[in-house]
Amino acid sequence: MQKIKAGIIGATGYAGVELIRILLKHPYVTLTAISSVSFEGKSVSEVYPSLKNICDDVLVNEDKVIDNCDVIFASLPHGLCEAIAKKAELKGKKFIDLGADFRLKDEKDYNEWYGLDYNDKELHKKSQYCIPELHRANITKDITIIGNPGCYPTSIGLGLAPIVKSKKANLDTIIIDSKSGVTGAGRGLSQTTHYPDCNEAFSPYKVASHRHTPEIEQTLSELSGENVKVTFVPHLLPVNRGIVSTIYVTLNENMTQDDIIKLYKDFYKDEKFVRVLDKGEVANLKNVKFSNYCDISLHLDNRTNRLVIVSTIDNMVKGAAGQAVQNMNIMFSLNEDEGIDLIPPAF
Amino acid sequence: MQKIKAGIIGATGYAGVELIRILLKHPYVTLTAISSVSFEGKSVSEVYPSLKNICDDVLVNEDKVIDNCDVIFASLPHGLCEAIAKKAELKGKKFIDLGADFRLKDEKDYNEWYGLDYNDKELHKKSQYCIPELHRANITKDITIIGNPGCYPTSIGLGLAPIVKSKKANLDTIIIDSKSGVTGAGRGLSQTTHYPDCNEAFSPYKVASHRHTPEIEQTLSELSGENVKVTFVPHLLPVNRGIVSTIYVTLNENMTQDDIIKLYKDFYKDEKFVRVLDKGEVANLKNVKFSNYCDISLHLDNRTNRLVIVSTIDNMVKGAAGQAVQNMNIMFSLNEDEGIDLIPPAF
Amino acid sequence: MQKIKAGIIGATGYAGVELIRILLKHPYVTLTAISSVSFEGKSVSEVYPSLKNICDDVLVNEDKVIDNCDVIFASLPHGLCEAIAKKAELKGKKFIDLGADFRLKDEKDYNEWYGLDYNDKELHKKSQYCIPELHRANITKDITIIGNPGCYPTSIGLGLAPIVKSKKANLDTIIIDSKSGVTGAGRGLSQTTHYPDCNEAFSPYKVASHRHTPEIEQTLSELSGENVKVTFVPHLLPVNRGIVSTIYVTLNENMTQDDIIKLYKDFYKDEKFVRVLDKGEVANLKNVKFSNYCDISLHLDNRTNRLVIVSTIDNMVKGAAGQAVQNMNIMFSLNEDEGIDLIPPAF
Amino acid sequence: MQKIKAGIIGATGYAGVELIRILLKHPYVTLTAISSVSFEGKSVSEVYPSLKNICDDVLVNEDKVIDNCDVIFASLPHGLCEAIAKKAELKGKKFIDLGADFRLKDEKDYNEWYGLDYNDKELHKKSQYCIPELHRANITKDITIIGNPGCYPTSIGLGLAPIVKSKKANLDTIIIDSKSGVTGAGRGLSQTTHYPDCNEAFSPYKVASHRHTPEIEQTLSELSGENVKVTFVPHLLPVNRGIVSTIYVTLNENMTQDDIIKLYKDFYKDEKFVRVLDKGEVANLKNVKFSNYCDISLHLDNRTNRLVIVSTIDNMVKGAAGQAVQNMNIMFSLNEDEGIDLIPPAF
Repeated sequence: MQKIKAGIIGATGYAGVELIRILLKHPYVTLTAISSVSFEGKSVSEVYPSLKNICDDVLVNEDKVIDNCDVIFASLPHGLCEAIAKKAELKGKKFIDLGADFRLKDEKDYNEWYGLDYNDKELHKKSQYCIPELHRANITKDITIIGNPGCYPTSIGLGLAPIVKSKKANLDTIIIDSKSGVTGAGRGLSQTTHYPDCNEAFSPYKVASHRHTPEIEQTLSELSGENVKVTFVPHLLPVNRGIVSTIYVTLNENMTQDDIIKLYKDFYKDEKFVRVLDKGEVANLKNVKFSNYCDISLHLDNRTNRLVIVSTIDNMVKGAAGQAVQNMNIMFSLNEDEGIDLIPPAF
Repeated sequence: MQKIKAGIIGATGYAGVELIRILLKHPYVTLTAISSVSFEGKSVSEVYPSLKNICDDVLVNEDKVIDNCDVIFASLPHGLCEAIAKKAELKGKKFIDLGADFRLKDEKDYNEWYGLDYNDKELHKKSQYCIPELHRANITKDITIIGNPGCYPTSIGLGLAPIVKSKKANLDTIIIDSKSGVTGAGRGLSQTTHYPDCNEAFSPYKVASHRHTPEIEQTLSELSGENVKVTFVPHLLPVNRGIVSTIYVTLNENMTQDDIIKLYKDFYKDEKFVRVLDKGEVANLKNVKFSNYCDISLHLDNRTNRLVIVSTIDNMVKGAAGQAVQNMNIMFSLNEDEGIDLIPPAF
Repeated sequence: MQKIKAGIIGATGYAGVELIRILLKHPYVTLTAISSVSFEGKSVSEVYPSLKNICDDVLVNEDKVIDNCDVIFASLPHGLCEAIAKKAELKGKKFIDLGADFRLKDEKDYNEWYGLDYNDKELHKKSQYCIPELHRANITKDITIIGNPGCYPTSIGLGLAPIVKSKKANLDTIIIDSKSGVTGAGRGLSQTTHYPDCNEAFSPYKVASHRHTPEIEQTLSELSGENVKVTFVPHLLPVNRGIVSTIYVTLNENMTQDDIIKLYKDFYKDEKFVRVLDKGEVANLKNVKFSNYCDISLHLDNRTNRLVIVSTIDNMVKGAAGQAVQNMNIMFSLNEDEGIDLIPPAF
Repeated sequence: MQKIKAGIIGATGYAGVELIRILLKHPYVTLTAISSVSFEGKSVSEVYPSLKNICDDVLVNEDKVIDNCDVIFASLPHGLCEAIAKKAELKGKKFIDLGADFRLKDEKDYNEWYGLDYNDKELHKKSQYCIPELHRANITKDITIIGNPGCYPTSIGLGLAPIVKSKKANLDTIIIDSKSGVTGAGRGLSQTTHYPDCNEAFSPYKVASHRHTPEIEQTLSELSGENVKVTFVPHLLPVNRGIVSTIYVTLNENMTQDDIIKLYKDFYKDEKFVRVLDKGEVANLKNVKFSNYCDISLHLDNRTNRLVIVSTIDNMVKGAAGQAVQNMNIMFSLNEDEGIDLIPPAF
């Protein structure tokens, strides 16, 4: 089989460089071109010395990436990708946006939470939002653009899907308390992520006002057929990688922990990347770091009949670059785990 | 004024050594005797070299502590303190238990969650559980034993008291997602707290089954006059010190963030150690570390009418040793902040 | 006694805010005015919420600090303090510079390593560089300006002074491998100190070219009467606070570890803030954090006749703000430990 | 080609589980059997939940591993492997010892530093110590046992080999200041590696008395033909993985930094896993984590004519499991990088 020529726009952001790491090892991909506005003309290994002798490619401009590749991954701030996707689409290329521009189906949500409009509404019809385990059926042949999910919504969507779809929980009671490693805040400098301010510290941020909220609600509403509203509070966790979402929802009926675990195991029985933990086990981000796995543990508070779901992913892999490659595999009809079958190290 | 002779039983545990640090600087206290079962006969600075030349006192046995002191702090595993408190009480000494043996008023709760009975019921009548800001009025002259509150219950009780007392929230909807630094797990070794297993990791533990649950509910039930049940999920946070409790509760009526903040500021207007943050501020454990402060920030999810309370303390100070000294100050009619007026370092 | 009115210029840098923490508790000081160019007009607790309700003073300009205070601490980038010290000196105020402008006696060194000249050579005659344990005799009544030592030079000067002065070591063989916590790099943002780049990372920087080199050599040359040259390599350590300097020097004669320890204990026998550790003990930065102590452990490599000295301080206390206050105490004839008699917490 | 059947004895130690991670992905290996004394009968994924669904193999006893495998990796405390290697050798199996029992050629060294004797001196003749870049020529067909190098000696041997072999340095002046992540201390619990004692701490240990000293000297003595003695001081670094060795040696002649870099680049010109950095670059452990690379940067202190070498590896990969697989590849005449061509993540 001829290899897929892949390119990355925004290759020097954290998700971009993680894409490089994954794509370089993908058996059916040739990493063909990478771009960066900030570092154009430099080699990527000057920016990330970890890549020295491994990938010394020079960073070009985005047009070169589009022209020379079959599939383009873009990891850019929101608002920039619609125009780039359009260019790619006109040249018949596939486009995977790791940002937010193709995630929300309802333009009103995009407008409300991001303050921008969809300039080319037709383009959005060729796009699909896709957490593979939940939405892969939507990636039909006509789809040329993927809205790759956000990190929090991935951990939360996978954590809630079985119970939400089952109708056994009261969907008005969903509360999500998420904690993300600092790479989630990106490579850009800020006082909050300055080492002495961030180390030995812990705090929520954007309490009940984070932009991932409508994306979470979109997935849950689709799964349930209802208009779901959640309370979502993210926290900054002093580790490099990983998200843990602790999710609370009241059950509509009496279920045992075994019932719940069975429900989840059945739901995910064909999914390699979702590991439903057994009784007595608790999801911990250390077990999924550097991998595409989502670990989910399930706990019952019998005293209040609340279900507590703990869902954890590596925010940079299943929450960004790994899932983007999973979506690429779907678009190119490859086995879904090609190139992302990564074993999480034990420490 | 003659100085109070204070002693510590269990001085080499984390709370014990924190007591040493505080009591050595207390203007009205002489640290007179310290004991440890594990290290009897050694000097405390052999166990904690940070104390070299500062406190080289030799660790004695508990009887010497009781005999020579006016007030005895005990920091021991639960189940051990009732007998020791009895000895102290017979000799007319005041006793402050940093463990769990005098926290729960209802023996049934103690029996259910700790698996033990109260052997001397009369003794418990001379004891009081005391978060000073909520219960100091209970420390009458007859009280000779203090059940010093747990770390989680302190952050949670202070975080919830104003809204629970106000009757403006639905008390069936309380969910508490707490995160504690690793000193909370104590000095004893375990795989979970082994550095490579604990660093770059994050996970809940004892989901909806932590022993601090009945203590939390006791305080909330007293405040409200109702039988309150909560869902409480603690997490292990890879920092040394500090607890952040993120607390969710649905409001009964429409309130603005300003209303809520005013309610809290009024409630705590005379309390030095509780800082109610202003609009736009978010509680962060880094701002209270090494101090007796509890910082509380208040956030509204208008979309769901839920209140989100973020309450943070240093688990070793306001959550243990500092609050114990605050309780001692009350017992001895000192200013409540003597010796614990510690400024949190900025980093 | 009337309290000393103290002020801080550059109060929002890390050393500045540490000065606030210390001076607020100093029994003979009133913190009277604080300034910041970046945050003038804001309160310091807006910049450092840890100080909320403790110090809400508004940041003014430097002239107000000079006018209203008896002693002015300045914590600014090098090159800025000569002019400010001049202003203070003209108004008869004492001035303590935590930066580099008054550390080097030989203007050539300042010129070579900092690229600047001394504009007012007379002013420098009224100044003294002072690690109190080594240079306090120099602080005569005529001295109105202190060049407060750098963090690395403090740990190294104290670590080497006894052996260098004893003439029992070959001063051509001194190699210093230092490791500093990240606060040493200051509050300013940089990629190197961005959390995900700094956490789980370790590296030297400015190898054999750090500006503290001439300051280290100045102290050692004075102590020995020889022209000492050292190799000095600093490293960035992923902790907030603390410096460990591991120092290697070949002995001129055979000495046992006991001999060496005795030499050091004798040298520092009257020094409260230097703790010479005993045989079997190893200096660890955790034991001096948040305190003004310098811990020194001494080790012999009998196979090569090299002495290995491990010297550790808190870079922000003994390495900056604490030592500055120690110098102030000397200038005002107070007990040297007033206000800096801080107990290092055990964790 | 038929796959190599590989087994691991001591599979639940940190090096053992890292071997599992690597061997599972090795294109020419089948991981056939794993053993553990502590956890026999359990599945490895019960001990390391990161391996759930990836490797749920049950831990057997060592004899099953020997019987069923072509090559046996052993990761055990010293003193245990000689007997096991003997068993393997009798059955015609290849044996790679990640411990210390086959590293030292001179039994006197083993006796002096480890307190044990070689019971079967003939067996040791069939063994070779092998840092591949330095000793691969020694792995002749007769060699059935590999003494896999220690982590510190690997970083140091690679860092010093070019200059030591060149005879351009004074070999009496070598000082090695190494810093290791906490996995280097193993999975066993200790107070030193208890999170609150280890986090925000830093200290040397076993100053000038670490057991890796004779191994380091053996390599340097062989390279130079002289009897080299070094001063070696390891430190415990609060990160999970990685070693940085900062090495000091005085040059015999004047050389520029360019000369030194050229010397090193020439020496390692055919070595994939050694990256000699360019002028202006500094080796940082973050760039080699999770990979088999050794990064070396070279710095001159012109003022003292000392060379400063910074050498960094991942202690668990190039310092243990990765290098063990590299040695296996040599023994089986595979490309040396098979299965260990791992890209270090950027964070």
